[in-house]
Amino acid sequence: MCEANAYIRTRDNEELLLSSVDKVIPNGDELLLENIFGQRKIIKGKIVEMALVDHKIIIEKTEQ
Amino acid sequence: MCEANAYIRTRDNEELLLSSVDKVIPNGDELLLENIFGQRKIIKGKIVEMALVDHKIIIEKTEQ
Repeated sequence: MCEANAYIRTRDNEELLLSSVDKVIPNGDELLLENIFGQRKIIKGKIVEMALVDHKIIIEKTEQ
Repeated sequence: MCEANAYIRTRDNEELLLSSVDKVIPNGDELLLENIFGQRKIIKGKIVEMALVDHKIIIEKTEQ
């Protein structure tokens, strides 16, 4: 399976937000993430980098 | 390998922009895409949907 793990990038490190992400749907200033188990997370943020071969999606929050 | 194919969504259909995409890096109103062969494309547009299990990244151009 080719899902990826979504991380929130903070000043110091990267924190796992949701693993095994299948779908990412930006909507205005939010991102909807859905993983292969049907779990969903909505976060105010933007994608800063995706590295699919490394199974990584890096997100930065736009507000705390 | 878990790369995806990037498509431009137009009014009528979806047109392949770059296959085997590994990295996607948004930068302002542009997206930098790089595939596993080192080919790069920069496009003015935004991600409208990613479906990683289907290996699909859908992009809409922000200007023609």
